[in-house]
Amino acid sequence: MASGWFYLSCLLLGSLGSMCILFTIYWMQYWRGGFAWNGSIYMFNWHPVLMVAGMVVFYGGASLVYRLPQSWVGPKLPWKLLHAALHLMAFILTVVGLVAVFTFHNHGKIANLYSLHSWLGITAVFLFACQWCLGFAVFLLPWASMWLRSLLKPIHVFFGAAILSLSIASVISGINEKLFFSLKNTTRPYNSLPSEAVFANSTGMLVVAFGLLVLYILLASSWKRPEPGILTDRQPLLHDGE
Amino acid sequence: MASGWFYLSCLLLGSLGSMCILFTIYWMQYWRGGFAWNGSIYMFNWHPVLMVAGMVVFYGGASLVYRLPQSWVGPKLPWKLLHAALHLMAFILTVVGLVAVFTFHNHGKIANLYSLHSWLGITAVFLFACQWCLGFAVFLLPWASMWLRSLLKPIHVFFGAAILSLSIASVISGINEKLFFSLKNTTRPYNSLPSEAVFANSTGMLVVAFGLLVLYILLASSWKRPEPGILTDRQPLLHDGE
Repeated sequence: MASGWFYLSCLLLGSLGSMCILFTIYWMQYWRGGFAWNGSIYMFNWHPVLMVAGMVVFYGGASLVYRLPQSWVGPKLPWKLLHAALHLMAFILTVVGLVAVFTFHNHGKIANLYSLHSWLGITAVFLFACQWCLGFAVFLLPWASMWLRSLLKPIHVFFGAAILSLSIASVISGINEKLFFSLKNTTRPYNSLPSEAVFANSTGMLVVAFGLLVLYILLASSWKRPEPGILTDRQPLLHDGE
Repeated sequence: MASGWFYLSCLLLGSLGSMCILFTIYWMQYWRGGFAWNGSIYMFNWHPVLMVAGMVVFYGGASLVYRLPQSWVGPKLPWKLLHAALHLMAFILTVVGLVAVFTFHNHGKIANLYSLHSWLGITAVFLFACQWCLGFAVFLLPWASMWLRSLLKPIHVFFGAAILSLSIASVISGINEKLFFSLKNTTRPYNSLPSEAVFANSTGMLVVAFGLLVLYILLASSWKRPEPGILTDRQPLLHDGE
């Protein structure tokens, strides 16, 4: 029964996550002229898609690896590797998304990193990089003591959730900002709620719903790997005997 | 020792919270012309101050009532009443903050509720109202069974944290949007980072830091009221025998 609810939540999560990415692609393709990689505004259009995909959807999915019932039994190492690999993919998408916006800005002589959206976004990416490196060093490499791991684990879990929350706030402020930019000086500005605005606002609300579902499964559900398996087994990267 | 860290965190929380409110007041007073209650832009200026105070600082403080070591022993009812009363104060500040922006919009024939900032913000306020009413009905009034309370408690705690996260995302997008509005057509626009922009961006980052500290104390710290006291004592509002 509990497992049935879990898979139902996964289904909902997968659907919401796909919709977040597909809706962002559709917004950029249909209303903003599509994609290119040439320093133009069409290069910028990769930015929202890749940030939503990397910092929210892939990141969210990657955080939930240990909630899969299959990960509760047997060796933990393959799941740790999967967790790290999926987060690395999320990080790569994120970096490409940043390259898209910085290149567009530099090409068009537009200032970088002035808005609160960018300050918060770059903070989230920086924390993500620190979190990945610290997680790799402490939980995958074999040197860290069990004491250190059990000390850092709640902090790792908390910052995992915190970074997702910051990403969501960045995405929301980014969509809001983009709509004010794009719908300025048009016959139907943002405040007249043209179809693009309704669509992009709804995409933002979907991102929020996806993020809250991830946080619920991560923090509040009972779908957690039982504690003894976490703290008593040390399965370092290089000396996994199981 | 643990208690020492707790009070140090409270000191930091109090300082951060006060700074969030004072910085927002200073921003509105020094750069945006101060406050009034007459439908003008000076009436709007109450909106950021009251939303930061209500939905973030008072809300955040009110959520942490059960983390005070004094609340861990003895009757729980006074702490429940304090929790509900502080949240009611937060809600009243929030409603006055909404009245400020709606009155300003209506007075100046500006559309309401079109931006993603407003969609997310109004969702957060609506969820806050539901959360308060449900919390009052289930955890304060005497009718609910222990089974129902223990079923709803993790959901209540999760939505408490989720609403704070949504509020932070709303505040960030709101500050971002306000700076684009206010610094448009000025000699020093937002993208040249004038002192107002640096100050308001920093205020946004302070709000994020405050929110993360609240969420850390709420979700990840060991400063929780021990479980037996929560689930075995029923202390209804009207029949508290302790």
